[in-house]
Amino acid sequence: MRRLWDHRHRRCRRPYGIGLHALQHRGQEAAGITAFDGTHFVSQRQLGHVADNFTSQKLIDTLKGHSAIGHVRYSTAGGSSMRNVQPLFADLATGGFAVSHNGNLTNAWHLRRQLVRHGSIFQSTSDSEVIIHLVATSTYRSLYDKLIDALRKIEGAYSLVILTRDGLFGMRDPLGVRPLVMGKLGDSHILCSETCALDILGAHYVREIEPGEIVIISGEGSGQTVKSIKPFAPQNPRPCIFEHVYFSRPDSLVDGLSVYDVRKRIGAELAREAPVDADVVIPVPDSGVPAAIGYAAQSGIPFELGIIRNHYVGRTFIEPSDHIRHLGVRLKHNANRWQIEGKRVILVDDSIVRGTTSLKIVDMVRQAGAREVHMRIASPPTRHSCFYGVDTPERSKLLAARMDIDAMRDYIHADSLAFVSIDGLYHACLLPEGRNNQQPQYCDACFSGDYPTHLTDQENDRDQELALFVAP
Amino acid sequence: MRRLWDHRHRRCRRPYGIGLHALQHRGQEAAGITAFDGTHFVSQRQLGHVADNFTSQKLIDTLKGHSAIGHVRYSTAGGSSMRNVQPLFADLATGGFAVSHNGNLTNAWHLRRQLVRHGSIFQSTSDSEVIIHLVATSTYRSLYDKLIDALRKIEGAYSLVILTRDGLFGMRDPLGVRPLVMGKLGDSHILCSETCALDILGAHYVREIEPGEIVIISGEGSGQTVKSIKPFAPQNPRPCIFEHVYFSRPDSLVDGLSVYDVRKRIGAELAREAPVDADVVIPVPDSGVPAAIGYAAQSGIPFELGIIRNHYVGRTFIEPSDHIRHLGVRLKHNANRWQIEGKRVILVDDSIVRGTTSLKIVDMVRQAGAREVHMRIASPPTRHSCFYGVDTPERSKLLAARMDIDAMRDYIHADSLAFVSIDGLYHACLLPEGRNNQQPQYCDACFSGDYPTHLTDQENDRDQELALFVAP
Amino acid sequence: MRRLWDHRHRRCRRPYGIGLHALQHRGQEAAGITAFDGTHFVSQRQLGHVADNFTSQKLIDTLKGHSAIGHVRYSTAGGSSMRNVQPLFADLATGGFAVSHNGNLTNAWHLRRQLVRHGSIFQSTSDSEVIIHLVATSTYRSLYDKLIDALRKIEGAYSLVILTRDGLFGMRDPLGVRPLVMGKLGDSHILCSETCALDILGAHYVREIEPGEIVIISGEGSGQTVKSIKPFAPQNPRPCIFEHVYFSRPDSLVDGLSVYDVRKRIGAELAREAPVDADVVIPVPDSGVPAAIGYAAQSGIPFELGIIRNHYVGRTFIEPSDHIRHLGVRLKHNANRWQIEGKRVILVDDSIVRGTTSLKIVDMVRQAGAREVHMRIASPPTRHSCFYGVDTPERSKLLAARMDIDAMRDYIHADSLAFVSIDGLYHACLLPEGRNNQQPQYCDACFSGDYPTHLTDQENDRDQELALFVAP
Amino acid sequence: MRRLWDHRHRRCRRPYGIGLHALQHRGQEAAGITAFDGTHFVSQRQLGHVADNFTSQKLIDTLKGHSAIGHVRYSTAGGSSMRNVQPLFADLATGGFAVSHNGNLTNAWHLRRQLVRHGSIFQSTSDSEVIIHLVATSTYRSLYDKLIDALRKIEGAYSLVILTRDGLFGMRDPLGVRPLVMGKLGDSHILCSETCALDILGAHYVREIEPGEIVIISGEGSGQTVKSIKPFAPQNPRPCIFEHVYFSRPDSLVDGLSVYDVRKRIGAELAREAPVDADVVIPVPDSGVPAAIGYAAQSGIPFELGIIRNHYVGRTFIEPSDHIRHLGVRLKHNANRWQIEGKRVILVDDSIVRGTTSLKIVDMVRQAGAREVHMRIASPPTRHSCFYGVDTPERSKLLAARMDIDAMRDYIHADSLAFVSIDGLYHACLLPEGRNNQQPQYCDACFSGDYPTHLTDQENDRDQELALFVAP
Repeated sequence: MRRLWDHRHRRCRRPYGIGLHALQHRGQEAAGITAFDGTHFVSQRQLGHVADNFTSQKLIDTLKGHSAIGHVRYSTAGGSSMRNVQPLFADLATGGFAVSHNGNLTNAWHLRRQLVRHGSIFQSTSDSEVIIHLVATSTYRSLYDKLIDALRKIEGAYSLVILTRDGLFGMRDPLGVRPLVMGKLGDSHILCSETCALDILGAHYVREIEPGEIVIISGEGSGQTVKSIKPFAPQNPRPCIFEHVYFSRPDSLVDGLSVYDVRKRIGAELAREAPVDADVVIPVPDSGVPAAIGYAAQSGIPFELGIIRNHYVGRTFIEPSDHIRHLGVRLKHNANRWQIEGKRVILVDDSIVRGTTSLKIVDMVRQAGAREVHMRIASPPTRHSCFYGVDTPERSKLLAARMDIDAMRDYIHADSLAFVSIDGLYHACLLPEGRNNQQPQYCDACFSGDYPTHLTDQENDRDQELALFVAP
Repeated sequence: MRRLWDHRHRRCRRPYGIGLHALQHRGQEAAGITAFDGTHFVSQRQLGHVADNFTSQKLIDTLKGHSAIGHVRYSTAGGSSMRNVQPLFADLATGGFAVSHNGNLTNAWHLRRQLVRHGSIFQSTSDSEVIIHLVATSTYRSLYDKLIDALRKIEGAYSLVILTRDGLFGMRDPLGVRPLVMGKLGDSHILCSETCALDILGAHYVREIEPGEIVIISGEGSGQTVKSIKPFAPQNPRPCIFEHVYFSRPDSLVDGLSVYDVRKRIGAELAREAPVDADVVIPVPDSGVPAAIGYAAQSGIPFELGIIRNHYVGRTFIEPSDHIRHLGVRLKHNANRWQIEGKRVILVDDSIVRGTTSLKIVDMVRQAGAREVHMRIASPPTRHSCFYGVDTPERSKLLAARMDIDAMRDYIHADSLAFVSIDGLYHACLLPEGRNNQQPQYCDACFSGDYPTHLTDQENDRDQELALFVAP
Repeated sequence: MRRLWDHRHRRCRRPYGIGLHALQHRGQEAAGITAFDGTHFVSQRQLGHVADNFTSQKLIDTLKGHSAIGHVRYSTAGGSSMRNVQPLFADLATGGFAVSHNGNLTNAWHLRRQLVRHGSIFQSTSDSEVIIHLVATSTYRSLYDKLIDALRKIEGAYSLVILTRDGLFGMRDPLGVRPLVMGKLGDSHILCSETCALDILGAHYVREIEPGEIVIISGEGSGQTVKSIKPFAPQNPRPCIFEHVYFSRPDSLVDGLSVYDVRKRIGAELAREAPVDADVVIPVPDSGVPAAIGYAAQSGIPFELGIIRNHYVGRTFIEPSDHIRHLGVRLKHNANRWQIEGKRVILVDDSIVRGTTSLKIVDMVRQAGAREVHMRIASPPTRHSCFYGVDTPERSKLLAARMDIDAMRDYIHADSLAFVSIDGLYHACLLPEGRNNQQPQYCDACFSGDYPTHLTDQENDRDQELALFVAP
Repeated sequence: MRRLWDHRHRRCRRPYGIGLHALQHRGQEAAGITAFDGTHFVSQRQLGHVADNFTSQKLIDTLKGHSAIGHVRYSTAGGSSMRNVQPLFADLATGGFAVSHNGNLTNAWHLRRQLVRHGSIFQSTSDSEVIIHLVATSTYRSLYDKLIDALRKIEGAYSLVILTRDGLFGMRDPLGVRPLVMGKLGDSHILCSETCALDILGAHYVREIEPGEIVIISGEGSGQTVKSIKPFAPQNPRPCIFEHVYFSRPDSLVDGLSVYDVRKRIGAELAREAPVDADVVIPVPDSGVPAAIGYAAQSGIPFELGIIRNHYVGRTFIEPSDHIRHLGVRLKHNANRWQIEGKRVILVDDSIVRGTTSLKIVDMVRQAGAREVHMRIASPPTRHSCFYGVDTPERSKLLAARMDIDAMRDYIHADSLAFVSIDGLYHACLLPEGRNNQQPQYCDACFSGDYPTHLTDQENDRDQELALFVAP
């Protein structure tokens, strides 16, 4: 799941929800905002895009208050029905409690089973809801203690923002798998997944929330305070390296690094590791562009926008007809024949997942008259599923889990295929020594299979636990 | 709250939901159906009328299964948002649990406060949801024992149908305030609020569920069984007399009496108790018709449909404009001037609540040229609010709680006004001795103020307990 | 087609559209209003009911102006797509021209063919549109002369209201087949199909527009004037007798007669012409009620509401599922078993068209335990189609065109069946001499086959002329 | 107005509408398709984007037939209501006639006035509708002659496709202002505005329709024929040069030139004409990208994607709230601070219209830390409105019509500002001699004010002719 939050003060006079626009790339399935005016909590949650649902003044006007949290969702656990849309809300004995969760818990089903046995009734099939029930049923007295009690029981990846009567809580799991940053606009503090959401608000970047840290923002205006606590034993951080490869926006700063620069450096690494004699470097738009610029600069081969993306079809089709589905890539991308015909082409893309898109792109470029097509991938082969909130398919559907690189090259009809090495990727992240295999600096489980937490639900058969209830 | 349920077997080949059409008069705000196919529960819940939401084949096809419960809602507690629409559903440790509730609990807020303190998270603001949480958190082992445990804690009026893996449960509170009847169609048993829902299905009437009785219908086809238990100490029943006066459809049998016949007998009682010399007896349509026929037959004064109801505007207006609201009765009813002009008119209506409608009707009849207007009401003065599921307004808005009968007559601009006596009403229910004041045969609290249960929530200040959460 | 218009002055402060509510029974398929503020014409046209579309303040506020016309539609020619919804509007050389048409032209296709050949482009498939093109292409100079020119070319039934810069025109065809009445509210004149639309506005009835008359209402406030012209050679009027039998609301005055009284007298005629020994007289609601009251009073047999109509399903079902369609009458009507069981029942209905409804009603009453069922119909057998704006099916589907009365009785499973005689019907219309066969006082073509105008389109094969364009 | 058409044969088994996706950039307001199956014409016309309306199988299935035309609309004349959505259709005496029009007529109001005086009734406020009425009222006999007759009367820019029983007509006005190309897929011929619509279908490019040419495609399958006629006196063509600057997609071939290459060459021209010492060349995405690549290559200054476009907000906002409107560019574009901070930036954009966007972009880049901001525009100053189908605002709102270049530079807060010269633009179109001022090779009226046709409606006061009818 891909998420965002923002929290701002009434003085800003900027209604809620703007930050969500900048984080739309992290989740296109649904979006929601919960606001708090000191007395009442109000939620607006909608399936679909932020721009389609959160731009009308009428709706924004319902979200009264001085603080709020938001969320954009792409389901990696729990399905896409309305009741899974976040922020989740509960009316606890300690008062209203709204939570947005970025990440994925790896023992959610195990905990859910226990909670149901003791009488908890779940409203959703989302893994995130166990957090609320753990807080609700905790026997500690204060909200703060209940929350620590709950966090001690969950495992997996979680960046959370929680809105309560007592303030806004922001926290990152002990490994810091998913990002969370703090910014400031006037007197008001803002928490969000990426710095680009600060830019859209005209706010400035303060710092990252640290792995295992909880910040508590309370008060209003010039009296607003930020407290920080670290209730967990310290661990070596393992932030997600895929944020650099694909997930974050190129204009964000992640782990103190410009994502755009990291991607350009990956492209340059690729040009050094896997050079090829060719006429033109063409990115698969849009995510391949910075790496292609880096590859072109390093290799001296000209960069051209040889594939045009049709931005009007970048959206989900509701009930797409068969003829649309089959056209697939052709609708979304078109080869610019007049830049390709008769040329030796280097295509640069961020990753290969199932391989179906790469195959269609290579074929399209060949049909446009390319003499040779060389595919260069700005990440190592994706061989393992992610259980921490990136929606990779199950392992059996990952092309790199089923084939070696030669077979992949043949499968996608390319003349040559190369991936950046794992050390090349770490170099691009400004770690000149590469990956420390004893103590890896990042979570790179999708490439290495080295998962940094227990996978309790994976080890048990969770399927028999699926809810019996299907509400259309 | 006004409710309905039905339960039918796959063999019937009649999709669910038809029975709800016949019970639409009991709740126009929302409707829902939950079906169970032996493995999955599926719910369809919609704001608005049954005919607008539950007639499409596409929707009905989603409701797969051999048993189902339904509900039509008019909110008397909890508001009209989507999350209060019934059947309510929960995924308990004992499996799926769907409930439809007709009636109103009088200690729901008290119980809710206790449950929240122990970690229960409520999904709705409906009083009915406490029943589910009481079952979920009961420490008894079997579903059956958990249910009895829950029912012992609630007070107020409740007819319930509950759909579980173990069968369909139907039950009525110990006083039997709200109705619940059983019918049969082929091998399948059906539970519903009124017999007219059996008629629409072509089913036949078997019997009423008795006050304090729980029936459990399980099995399919010819193997279907009905068990009956009575876990409560016996009490004198107090069924709601307002079902006869207004709430039930005239073609239903309630407490073994034809509602139409009871209303005609009330009209005849009125003619005896409050005769007047006049030219024509005119009902306020539609609910005043049977009593007007009875009055006309007893008095020998001709019955005419002197007020025409416009059935196209009988429905709720979404965002009615001011000019429509002000027209009020005129839109819904029109005096048939050609039957009224120059005549002495007896108007017969079922009840007077706020008095605004009566005032408009009398004025309209006068403007159509009536020489005299005599209002006759087929129930005693409504002086008290109902806390058992009929949506009477708060006491201060009841005309009869604020004025004596002379003042009411002046207020509605009538030449004379009379209500049937409380004993007359009981006579019409075939109790020749009238009301037994030591041990009343009915709940008539709206007329007498004699409430047959505790009113725990009324005695406390429940307002400060209102949920903080407002989800538009 | 069934229509309405209203025209009112700004002083009334009552927004447009209220009158349409009272005429909803004349057309449930679509409704529209066109308003004129002295400069601009604005239209709101919607598929569906008036109450669903014309009650929001937001919509009504768009209809600015001091005069307006409206329309409710049930398609008898042209189909039910949006572009056929009236008022039709055209921007002519003489200025804006909006028209509402009640009735049906019998040479519309013939004229359309001619107009298209000369370059007219039709916007709709409605017969009414030819009137506009005839006005647009007339070579006369003034709007008034163009209009007379157009009317001389059309044949069939038409009551029209036309809104122009020069005032509001109201007119009835030379035979006066369809009704049109004038009322007054303050200084403002109102034209509408039935007097019940005046009642809802609090307006008083002035007079009928005469057959062949054109009235022109112009000016505002106290300066408003009404001119009358009669440009046609006088003919004997032939107003539609079916308005009395079924079409008009019982609270309207048609041809100077109370519709309710006419129907009661038809019932009394029936009781004299076709008496039967029975226990109870039961109307098929709602249209059979006045005749049943008349029958009961004449025969001395008690009147009871033995069939209950479910008013919540009186509306069109969007995409009704099969199981709903099959239930048919059962959903809409329910026999009140407790009034019927063991009794000899006289059922009174207004007419028999296809016979399917009568069959279902008789069967339902038998299943409720009736010992005998005698059907009495308050009109003569409907043996011919109407080409003047009542939506009777084609002749081959009319039961009375296919069978004699004995066969019809058997078909509907009744013990006896009788229709009122044609002279009995005329008697009820206060013509003691009955029908004048040389010079009939009414159009009764649906009973007699005696059509009072040419049927040009019927005599030609119009099917090959159907528009090639199907716009979903 | 910006348009598209496609025509394909049943054998292709590819449903209609795919081509429209590739032309979405030419009109986002509405889209429509009319299909013909040899007997019936069926239209689907919708406000909004193609992807939102024309992807469901259900809708596509209604469009039966072997030939079809489509259209995407951006209103430059006539407003955006439903009735202006094309294809327009009329049922003429010669049969069904559907037309899609790309361009804008300059004497439409003049002709409309004449036609209305003779009895034509217009359905829309679109300029395109006069073409249909001219055909309908032409006194010539054959459809072919009627069409020529109509074309002789209109002036302005028009590429048309017309679907009739006799085949598909495609035509371009005598100056060839707007484009129209022909492609082929199997045996079927396709007409469309740009070659990118051929690519999406897998069709190949055949040729452009020539200025003043009419092609007639008839027959099916292998029997399909294409006839060509040129009924007008020959003129020097004046195709729109703005297609190269902005309007066409970069992957299209226009006038035999790759649009992408033309734009790169404009960028190179700019680098030669207006060099500046700087650190980075940044395009305003997406339309400035090719020119920026050309500028960077010519100048040797590195190209970077320093402004990130948020593709999720590229769509029209329905009822955008104020806070969204004010954010403007910030929502759509974000400066990538980490590429900009401390640098001297060259921004490259395609044109400056009102100047508001340029101002916001320059300010945003400065706030991201740019040391200097130099704006380079890949077209000459836009000083005149377009009356031929590009939606430029009225002249008084064009920044270049109100200011000289120094004032414009100050207005947009840039350190320097330069536009490519008009001759530089012609050079980039491979005309080494530049613009021939005696006989210009292109229509460049938006830059030069040199309009190649009469502007009849501009010379008269058309405002008083606006339709009186406003249909919400």
